[in-house]
Amino acid sequence: MDRKLADYIDRLKSLNFQGMYEGDFFLTWEKTEEEIKAVFTAADALRLMRESNISTRIFDSGLGISLFRDNSTRTRFSFASACNMLGLEVRDLDEGKSQIAHGETVRETANMISFMADVIGIRDDMYIGKGNKYMHDVVDAVTKGYEAGILEQKPTLVNLQCDIDHPTQCMADLLHVINTYGGVEKLKGKKIAMTWAYSPSYGKPLSVPQGVIGLMTRFGMDVVLAHPEGYEVMPEVEKTAMENAKASGGSFTKTGSMEEAFKDADIVYPKSWAPFAAMEKRTDLYGRGDLEGIKELEKELLAQNAKHMDWCCTEKLMASTRDQKAIYLHCLPADINGVSCENGEVEESVFDRYRDSLYRQASYKPYIIAAMILLARQKDPCATLEALAKQNTPRHLK
Amino acid sequence: MDRKLADYIDRLKSLNFQGMYEGDFFLTWEKTEEEIKAVFTAADALRLMRESNISTRIFDSGLGISLFRDNSTRTRFSFASACNMLGLEVRDLDEGKSQIAHGETVRETANMISFMADVIGIRDDMYIGKGNKYMHDVVDAVTKGYEAGILEQKPTLVNLQCDIDHPTQCMADLLHVINTYGGVEKLKGKKIAMTWAYSPSYGKPLSVPQGVIGLMTRFGMDVVLAHPEGYEVMPEVEKTAMENAKASGGSFTKTGSMEEAFKDADIVYPKSWAPFAAMEKRTDLYGRGDLEGIKELEKELLAQNAKHMDWCCTEKLMASTRDQKAIYLHCLPADINGVSCENGEVEESVFDRYRDSLYRQASYKPYIIAAMILLARQKDPCATLEALAKQNTPRHLK
Amino acid sequence: MDRKLADYIDRLKSLNFQGMYEGDFFLTWEKTEEEIKAVFTAADALRLMRESNISTRIFDSGLGISLFRDNSTRTRFSFASACNMLGLEVRDLDEGKSQIAHGETVRETANMISFMADVIGIRDDMYIGKGNKYMHDVVDAVTKGYEAGILEQKPTLVNLQCDIDHPTQCMADLLHVINTYGGVEKLKGKKIAMTWAYSPSYGKPLSVPQGVIGLMTRFGMDVVLAHPEGYEVMPEVEKTAMENAKASGGSFTKTGSMEEAFKDADIVYPKSWAPFAAMEKRTDLYGRGDLEGIKELEKELLAQNAKHMDWCCTEKLMASTRDQKAIYLHCLPADINGVSCENGEVEESVFDRYRDSLYRQASYKPYIIAAMILLARQKDPCATLEALAKQNTPRHLK
Repeated sequence: MDRKLADYIDRLKSLNFQGMYEGDFFLTWEKTEEEIKAVFTAADALRLMRESNISTRIFDSGLGISLFRDNSTRTRFSFASACNMLGLEVRDLDEGKSQIAHGETVRETANMISFMADVIGIRDDMYIGKGNKYMHDVVDAVTKGYEAGILEQKPTLVNLQCDIDHPTQCMADLLHVINTYGGVEKLKGKKIAMTWAYSPSYGKPLSVPQGVIGLMTRFGMDVVLAHPEGYEVMPEVEKTAMENAKASGGSFTKTGSMEEAFKDADIVYPKSWAPFAAMEKRTDLYGRGDLEGIKELEKELLAQNAKHMDWCCTEKLMASTRDQKAIYLHCLPADINGVSCENGEVEESVFDRYRDSLYRQASYKPYIIAAMILLARQKDPCATLEALAKQNTPRHLK
Repeated sequence: MDRKLADYIDRLKSLNFQGMYEGDFFLTWEKTEEEIKAVFTAADALRLMRESNISTRIFDSGLGISLFRDNSTRTRFSFASACNMLGLEVRDLDEGKSQIAHGETVRETANMISFMADVIGIRDDMYIGKGNKYMHDVVDAVTKGYEAGILEQKPTLVNLQCDIDHPTQCMADLLHVINTYGGVEKLKGKKIAMTWAYSPSYGKPLSVPQGVIGLMTRFGMDVVLAHPEGYEVMPEVEKTAMENAKASGGSFTKTGSMEEAFKDADIVYPKSWAPFAAMEKRTDLYGRGDLEGIKELEKELLAQNAKHMDWCCTEKLMASTRDQKAIYLHCLPADINGVSCENGEVEESVFDRYRDSLYRQASYKPYIIAAMILLARQKDPCATLEALAKQNTPRHLK
Repeated sequence: MDRKLADYIDRLKSLNFQGMYEGDFFLTWEKTEEEIKAVFTAADALRLMRESNISTRIFDSGLGISLFRDNSTRTRFSFASACNMLGLEVRDLDEGKSQIAHGETVRETANMISFMADVIGIRDDMYIGKGNKYMHDVVDAVTKGYEAGILEQKPTLVNLQCDIDHPTQCMADLLHVINTYGGVEKLKGKKIAMTWAYSPSYGKPLSVPQGVIGLMTRFGMDVVLAHPEGYEVMPEVEKTAMENAKASGGSFTKTGSMEEAFKDADIVYPKSWAPFAAMEKRTDLYGRGDLEGIKELEKELLAQNAKHMDWCCTEKLMASTRDQKAIYLHCLPADINGVSCENGEVEESVFDRYRDSLYRQASYKPYIIAAMILLARQKDPCATLEALAKQNTPRHLK
C-alpha cells in the first residue's frame, strides 16, 4: 500500500470516533475533537485513493437522497460527487414534484423516500429556528422507521447547510487551511479573521460565520469575529465559540473594526451575511405570509448594508495581514468589485490572486461529505479503507 | 444458501410464469393467478436478499426511464429504488424539457428514449380512457422498434398508475396483507372492505379502488365495495371483480353503507375517490379546454363530497371489525382529521395506531416493481436468483 | 474474441488518432480524417459489444455533467446513454437551480462542477457567436483548474450542439449512411443533397446544415447545398466545405433549386433552418433585451418562410433521386404534412416509408458520443477495448 495512505489509516486508527457509527452530522460542535479530526483524515485518505485511481465504492447499489430548499451549485455537485464515489446514486427530492404540499407530514415523507436510502443530504438555511429542526425531525422519523423494522437501514443525515451551521463548508475550509500549513497541529496560535463584508444583496445566511467561529475555535487558533453593529450572529453560537476557545487554548474575540481583525491575521474570511435579528423577523413575516412586510424589510436591509460599503477586502487591508499574505477564504460565489457588482466583498485583484487557492478550498467539500458518510455507515472504516486499497479496483480503467 | 431464500426460489420454480418473459405489466387481471403469485414470491426473495446484504444487480449498466404525468413521491422513489437495486440508472423524461410539445409523436419519443432502456415506468392517471391507452402506445412503439432492429432490447413497461389500475400499489398492499397473515393461502374467506371515504379534495384517481377489487377478488376473499350513490367505479372493472370472485371461490358485493362494509371485516381500505362519471366529464372538459366548465365541475364535486362527511374511518367503525382489529390499509398520504384537514378520511387516533403498519405496507412497493422487472427481463429468474445468491457480492461492503 | 470486433479493433489500430487523448470535441473539421474515422470505428465497436452483452464500463464511478440550454429529448437521452454505458452517472446542471444567475463566472462554475467530472456535455445553440465560444470558455477554465492541481482530471467536453456545428448529430447521420452502404470507402462519388425545407416555425438552428456540409465533404462525396435566397449559412463554414471537398476529391456546390439538388441524389437531407443573418439579428435583439424587436423579427421570419412552402420533400421529388430510392435523412423531429402541421418539411408517405431508417439513423448518436469520450479519456483505446472484450463481464446477467 502507498505509504501516505497507510499513514492516514494509521492516524485514523489512533482516533476515537466510534461514536459516529450509525450517527448523523448536524453541527460540528456536537462532535468531539477526535471525531472532527477523523473526518479530516478520512477525507484526505479518500482523496488520495481517488487520485491514485483506487475505487472507493463501498456500495454496489443504494441511494443518496438530496433535498435542497435553496439554490445550490457547488454543494449540490459536492454531495453528488461524494455519493457517486462511494457507489450511491443520487435522487433529488424535488418538493415541487412531490406530494409534500398535499399535507403529507415530514415523518411520512422521510420514511417513504428511505426504503433504499443510505444517505440523506439536506440544505435548509432560509429560516431561523427551522432548518436544523427540520433535519432532526427527518432523523427522528427514519430512526423510528428503522426501529420498527420498516427501513432496512437508518440513512445517515448530512447537514448541507442549516440556519445554525454549514459543517461541510467550514470543514472543507479548515481542511484547506490545514493542508496549506501541513498539519492540524500547525493551527495553534494562528489568527483567523471572520469578518462581515459589504454586499449589495440582503438575506445571506449566517451559517458560514457561525460555522466558522464554532469550528475554528477548537484548535487553539485566535478567532476574531468582526462586523458592524447590528450584524450580530446567534448568541448561543458565540457562547459555543467562547467555550471552545477556552478548551483549546485559543481565543475568541469580537470587534467592530475590519482593520483590527485583519491586522496580522494569518487567515481572513471576509463575507457578507444578514443580521440575525432581521432573519428572525423575516422568518416571522414568511410564517404570516406578510409579503408587504417582507418587501419593506428587504428595503431596510439593503439600506442598512449600504451604510457599510467600506467593509471590503481591499489590497490595503490584505497588506496589513501577517507577512502581507494571509490565506484568503470564501465559500463562493463572492461579490467582486467591478465584476459581479460595483461594490462588493472583495477587490478584483485580491480575488484574482487567490483564485486557485479558493477553488482548492472548494475542492475539499466532496471529500468532507464522503468522509462523513464513511464514518457513519461503516462499523470499521479503517478496515474498509484497507480492504479497498488491497482490492485496488481501478476507478477508471486506463 | 439461506434456507428461507431457497424456499422462495423453490416456490417460484413451482409456478408457471414463463409468459411474463419480455412482457409488460399493465393490469393485474391480465395476468394469471400463478403470475401474480410469482411477483409476490420474487418480491419476497429480492427483499430477503437485500436485507441479507446480497447484491441484486442483474444489470452492470442500463437505464430505467420514468415518466410521471402527475406529482408523486413514493411511487417515484419506489421506481428509482427498484431500478437501482437491479443496477439500472433512472432518467426522468421531463416532458417540459423535451421536444414532445413540438408535435413529436408517441411512437417517435418512445423509440428515441429507449436505445439503452431496459425499463420504462409511466404514471398517467389523470384522464379516463387515456392513461392505459398511452402505455399501450408506448409498448407498441418500442416493440416495433425492437422488431425493426433499431432497439437492442424491448424495454419492459411497468404501469405506475393509470386510469384503470394501480398494480404496483395494490400488489404491495396485498403482499403486506399476505405477509401479515403468513401466506397467500390464508387469504381465503377473509373479508376486505374497500370503501369510499370523505376528503375535502376532488378528483382523486379511481385506480386504487379499481385495482383493489380487481386484484383482491382473485384469492377467495370476500370483497365488499362501499360508496355513496354517485361514486361508482368503472363498470367493466366491477365485472372483472365479479368474475374473479366466482373463479376464486370468494365473493364480490356492493353496498351503500360504510357500517355494513366494516362489520366483521378483516381488512379495511377507506379512501376517497372521484366519481367515474365526473372524471369522464372532466376528461372531456380538458379535451375541449373548457376552463370555466372545469372550475364549475370542481365546485360541484366538492359540494357533492361534502354531503358525505360521515364517511370517515372512526374508532367506532374500527371497533366493529373482526376482533376489533382489522388491518387498516391506505395508499398514503391520507386525509387525517385534525391533521391535514378538519374532516377527512380517518380519525387521527386510528391513523396513529396503524402508522407502522401503513409504512410497512408502502415498503413493499419497490420490491413489487423490482420483481415485475425481474420476471420480464430474465429468461430464467430462478437461475438468476440462484446465481446472485451464489455470487454473494455484498450490497454494502461493511 | 468475436471476429467482427477484432476487425474493428484492428482498423482502429491502423488509424492515427492519438492527438485526441485528453482532448475535446468541438467541430468535426478541427479533427483529422483519421480521427473522424476513429470515432466511427470506435462507435461501431462499442455498439457491437453492447449488442453482444459485453460490459463497456471503463469507469467504476465518476460523473458526466450535462448542460442543456435548449429543450432536448434525443440528445439528452443519447448523452445519458453514452455516459451510462461507460459507467458514468449523469448529473444535469440546471442553471435555474444553481447560483449561476447570482453573478458567478463561467470559470468558477466550470471548476465547481468538475471535481469528479470525467465528461461535460453542452448544448448551446441559440445565439450566433455564443455557443461554441461558451464551450471553449468552459474548457479553458477546467484546463486551468487541472493544471493548477485543483481538478484531478480535465473533463472532456462534448459539443452536443452549438451555433456552428452539431457534431454528434452529423456523425451519427454519416455513420448510418456508411453502414447502409457497407463502408466509409463507398461514400466516394455519392451525391448528397442538404436542402432547406419549409416549416411553419422560425429560428431553427443552423448547426445541422452547417455540420453536414462541413463533415460530408470530407469523404469524396458530391455535396449540394440548396436553399431559397436569404437562407444562407455561415460563410466560413461554406469555405470549410469547399476546402474539404477539394482535399477529398469530392465537390461542394450550391443551388437555389430543391429539384436540382434532389436530381439523382443518393442521399437527401431536407430540413428547415433560419437565415444566418436573421439569427445574428436575433442574437443582438436578445442581447439588448428588445422584446418588441424579437416579436417583430419572428413575424418577418414566418412571413419569409411562408414564401417557400413549395420547398417540401414530396414523393415526386423522391422519385427524381438515384433509382428513386435515395436515403432520406432527418435529425428529427420533422414537420410532417398533415401530421404535425398542415404544410411542412416532408410528405407523410415519404416520412412513413423511411421511419425505420430514420430511427436507426438516430440510434447511432449514443455510440458516437461514447466513442468521442472513449478516444479522449483513454490513452490506448484499442487496449481498453481488448481488455473489455477479454474481461467479458455481461452487461445484463441473463
